[in-house]
Amino acid sequence: MITKMHGAGGRLMIEFIKNQILKNIELKKVNGLGLDDLDDAGTIKLDDKHIAFTTDSYTVKPIFFPGGDIGRLAVSGTVNDLSVVGAKPLALSLAFIIPEGYDEEKIERIIKSINKTSKEAEVAIIAGDTKVTDGLDEIIINTSGVGVAEKVIKDSGVKDGDAIIVSGNIAEHGLAILLSREEFEFETNIKSDVAPLNKMIENILDLEISAMKDPTRGGLAEALNELAEKSSVGITIFEDKIPISDEVSSVCEILGLDPLTIANEGKVVIAVDKKDAEECLERLREHPLGKNAEIIGYATKEHKGVLMETGIGKRIIDYPIGDPIPRVC
Amino acid sequence: MITKMHGAGGRLMIEFIKNQILKNIELKKVNGLGLDDLDDAGTIKLDDKHIAFTTDSYTVKPIFFPGGDIGRLAVSGTVNDLSVVGAKPLALSLAFIIPEGYDEEKIERIIKSINKTSKEAEVAIIAGDTKVTDGLDEIIINTSGVGVAEKVIKDSGVKDGDAIIVSGNIAEHGLAILLSREEFEFETNIKSDVAPLNKMIENILDLEISAMKDPTRGGLAEALNELAEKSSVGITIFEDKIPISDEVSSVCEILGLDPLTIANEGKVVIAVDKKDAEECLERLREHPLGKNAEIIGYATKEHKGVLMETGIGKRIIDYPIGDPIPRVC
Ligand SMILES: Nc1ncnc2c1ncn2[C@@H]1O[C@H](COP(=O)(O)OP(=O)(O)OP(=O)(O)O)[C@@H](O)[C@H]1O
Ligand SMILES: Nc1ncnc2c1ncn2[C@@H]1O[C@H](COP(=O)(O)OP(=O)(O)OP(=O)(O)O)[C@@H](O)[C@H]1O
Ligand SMILES: [Mg+2]
Ligand SMILES: [Mg+2]
Ligand SMILES: [Mg+2]
Ligand SMILES: [Mg+2]
Ligand SMILES: [Mg+2]
Ligand SMILES: [Mg+2]
Repeated sequence: MITKMHGAGGRLMIEFIKNQILKNIELKKVNGLGLDDLDDAGTIKLDDKHIAFTTDSYTVKPIFFPGGDIGRLAVSGTVNDLSVVGAKPLALSLAFIIPEGYDEEKIERIIKSINKTSKEAEVAIIAGDTKVTDGLDEIIINTSGVGVAEKVIKDSGVKDGDAIIVSGNIAEHGLAILLSREEFEFETNIKSDVAPLNKMIENILDLEISAMKDPTRGGLAEALNELAEKSSVGITIFEDKIPISDEVSSVCEILGLDPLTIANEGKVVIAVDKKDAEECLERLREHPLGKNAEIIGYATKEHKGVLMETGIGKRIIDYPIGDPIPRVC
Repeated sequence: MITKMHGAGGRLMIEFIKNQILKNIELKKVNGLGLDDLDDAGTIKLDDKHIAFTTDSYTVKPIFFPGGDIGRLAVSGTVNDLSVVGAKPLALSLAFIIPEGYDEEKIERIIKSINKTSKEAEVAIIAGDTKVTDGLDEIIINTSGVGVAEKVIKDSGVKDGDAIIVSGNIAEHGLAILLSREEFEFETNIKSDVAPLNKMIENILDLEISAMKDPTRGGLAEALNELAEKSSVGITIFEDKIPISDEVSSVCEILGLDPLTIANEGKVVIAVDKKDAEECLERLREHPLGKNAEIIGYATKEHKGVLMETGIGKRIIDYPIGDPIPRVC
């Protein structure tokens, strides 16, 4: 039986994908990244370029939340998955699955937000589909995207000694979703970080970037573990270097949540050759979406997996079972 | 309020798309077919080639039906939308939206069918996404696709004098879905025609093809009206030339359905220069999926819209309001 944890990023989802999808599908790559790579996008070599191609469905609830909405999310998430494989996004598709009897004004609000974000990212929408169905309680959006890359940046590219950078404060998207669902005893200013990162990322592509990932479902813990495992290196991070706002940090403590496992929708994790680390950090910080970027650690052959140095010793950061917040994206 | 008819192909859906989506989205083409063209796929010129890009979500109910299932449909539908703009499909994405508590065996059956159809079409799946959600009663699949075209074939390309060809018997998919839903007083052998048409279509691309369309939601009536309107020509068809099985014809009569408005998922409508019409017909008939192909009419400047010559005079074939069968794809 499929549970929400099968769709929460993390271990259960990856097992489901491996046991069901990767096992049963035979044609799963063209000539580049394919399904078995479990990367953020697939790629196809065409002449001297690489076409990147990715898809995500958005089932977030509520659809309007502090800092964004399902429309902004649907554009940003797909743009970001293209960007982190080193591609410049060329175009998106937009598929609406609408519950029968749905309010047309809500759709209009969503479409206006999609338009705004598409202009912010400078990415056009060139194909779409509309289905209306019963048996559904809230709108679902799928966006897919195509881009072009000069060079494909793979999750498996992290090298011993690389610096690990996070582009800003973590755990904001997931927490904003959670807090907007129920009445809590405290008021917060926590907003989703949802944003298209393509402009910021295009600005560092001439540096020696080894790997990139957007730490969405499963958060930073999931992204770092995937990078380490696929690259056969260990990653050490320093707790006091991880950018996080005081408010997010204390709300997580109150709610008993680990911010490392909470989804981000406007952040990127970068492994960069150490000679380019400072330059990369500087360029990220020049961009409004990267102003809180930090070098949080390094890749090493000395251990496997992900270790975090805390004030009181080392902690193993394992794959999360899944994102602790369901329907987060 | 959004009703099922807004998602049924046809007039209401096109109005919704025009009034909501085309009006509010500003970046809607790159350099080729874009949203305003309302064609089967968008296209992007890249060097001397055209990248084609399309998306469809599949909400069909029941998910297993005579002649196919949601998996075969999800591969075929997207492959066909790429093929009818003249592209060779390169790769698909596969996004599952799974109801919480869903039966894993059903998913396995669907994935095996996806695999079989992907091999039949020789198109790889290189990206995917999995979401699990409450508030949903049946699995939904989105597939998007990318392809490459030497030359883009547009809906707007029909020329005065072109022959209009349909590649085989109409109305089978929609009717098979309808008949599998309820107990009817008669037993039939009607099966969905769902199939990937890329191989058959690639075989005619060297001919002077003016336009192509897969007559899905809204059926042949919708496809012919779109071709005629976008090309600013009229289309005349002959009722006795339209390929349809006796069984489909009599079931439609019993149920009071117009077969021209019923969805197909393994057929293509082709406008071809009259000098190549016979050759095109012959090549289609050589392919198992085209064995019942017929020239059903011609394009003309003598009238607007779509006219059908019947034994007792001419009938105007208008845009259907929508497909008479909901959740057909
Ligand atoms: N239904 C599926 N079919 C094929 N591959 C899938 C499917 N679901 C997920 N995958 C693959 O598994 C990997 C992980 O998917 P996931 O959705 O977690 O990545 P993501 O889009 O980067 O993250 P998020 O969805 O949280 O934004 C990707 O490589 C994806 O292509
Ligand atoms: N949500 C949407 N956003 C943008 N464009 C859309 C949307 N829905 C539909 N369209 C556009 O409207 C046109 C008609 O869509 P439609 O889904 O009927 O085409 P199709 O996929 O060829 O048919 P079917 O879905 O029945 O297989 C297409 O050009 C499509 O890009
Ligand atoms: Mg990603
Ligand atoms: Mg993603
Ligand atoms: Mg469609
Ligand atoms: Mg179509
Ligand atoms: Mg289609
Ligand atoms: Mg995903």
